[in-house]
Amino acid sequence: MLKLVGFDADDTLWHSEGYYREVHGHFEQILGHYIDIGNDKVHEHLLEVERRNIKLFGYGAKGMTLSMLETAVAMTAERISARHLHEILQLGKDVLTHPVRLLEGVAEAVAEVAREYQVVLITKGDLFHQESKVARSGLSPLFGRIEIVSEKDPPTYLRVLSEFGLAPHQFLMVGNSLHSDIAPVLQIGAFAVHVPYPLTWALDHHEGCIADDDKLRTVESTAQVPAAVRELALNAARRH
Amino acid sequence: MLKLVGFDADDTLWHSEGYYREVHGHFEQILGHYIDIGNDKVHEHLLEVERRNIKLFGYGAKGMTLSMLETAVAMTAERISARHLHEILQLGKDVLTHPVRLLEGVAEAVAEVAREYQVVLITKGDLFHQESKVARSGLSPLFGRIEIVSEKDPPTYLRVLSEFGLAPHQFLMVGNSLHSDIAPVLQIGAFAVHVPYPLTWALDHHEGCIADDDKLRTVESTAQVPAAVRELALNAARRH
Repeated sequence: MLKLVGFDADDTLWHSEGYYREVHGHFEQILGHYIDIGNDKVHEHLLEVERRNIKLFGYGAKGMTLSMLETAVAMTAERISARHLHEILQLGKDVLTHPVRLLEGVAEAVAEVAREYQVVLITKGDLFHQESKVARSGLSPLFGRIEIVSEKDPPTYLRVLSEFGLAPHQFLMVGNSLHSDIAPVLQIGAFAVHVPYPLTWALDHHEGCIADDDKLRTVESTAQVPAAVRELALNAARRH
Repeated sequence: MLKLVGFDADDTLWHSEGYYREVHGHFEQILGHYIDIGNDKVHEHLLEVERRNIKLFGYGAKGMTLSMLETAVAMTAERISARHLHEILQLGKDVLTHPVRLLEGVAEAVAEVAREYQVVLITKGDLFHQESKVARSGLSPLFGRIEIVSEKDPPTYLRVLSEFGLAPHQFLMVGNSLHSDIAPVLQIGAFAVHVPYPLTWALDHHEGCIADDDKLRTVESTAQVPAAVRELALNAARRH
């Protein structure tokens, strides 16, 4: 029997990646005062720095800001001014304070799922920033619990389930990221509903393919999530 | 009956504040290339910036690094070089990678308490950095659960207790900070053992006084924690 439904947050409940893209655009403009920014090379250099720093910073806007500053110093060969570095720091603050805009139909869909199952928000990234977004989203009353984790891999999902005293076949995850929300969840034997979002962060791209699994549904919009959950729950009931 | 004992991490289990002090010293030296750093004014300016940014960044080394960069730009009136700002960024990375040195007798004391009670590590700050320190400390096997929280106030302690299905009189907290580990815990009616550490971060100073409470013991070293826990547990048993 399905007992617990997890919801991812960024780009599943509210818009996020678009704000990061906007900041990256401004970042390139600032570097354009010093270097040729053609051919996506700023983006690629930043991604390389972020990939290296993630072992130290983890995910989130503060780490991204530090990586932007590091990239700016390196790509300009230390020619960038303190004023421009300060502008980059300010871009990071803008990401931390961007408004929380829910995706269409999210509040209704979560409320509908919450009438039948315990729901939990499971998100990776910066503890403080994510808590602030949850608070500003107005969705806190719907979620019994908020789990902010440093990585969304099979061991993390198993740890969260053990804290709830549940087995994988009692759990379903809803999210936009194949890499973080779908693949590891199917891997532990739980259920998943994939709601694709038009933008995906480069470091969250999924490598490899997800088999056409009878524990997975892909829906076009959040409004279709409750029906997909119900359908998978029936499958779960039939198995056990 | 006492059921759960919480341990703070930084400066309770392992040394932390000393590394921050060291970094602040290097930070002042860098600013010394541009301005007169006498009379503690760098320290005061940094503290003011940190206090303002904490609503945005929360606690932890990444936020501190961003605040140091902001302070450096402001105090030098944008004259600081990219190379020096990069050095400051590197200081932040040094804090994130400092070795985890346990306080004397910590492993034995936690193990002794864990033989009689469930133990949980409760720390505030950066999720990723704290998890990395827990992993490197070698103490993970002793702790059933790690709670990394964004603020240590009465509502947070009550939330953690509700996740364990426990009441305040079944909980005792061990820590070095009157502000974060002792005052809010006594406020909710739980027990506390205070193990003072020689250094305290300015923003973690306790304002006001802690009444001489029969639910509180202050000990001189971690080795004395198990005996203090036992003594308070006896008090708890007598009350209920």
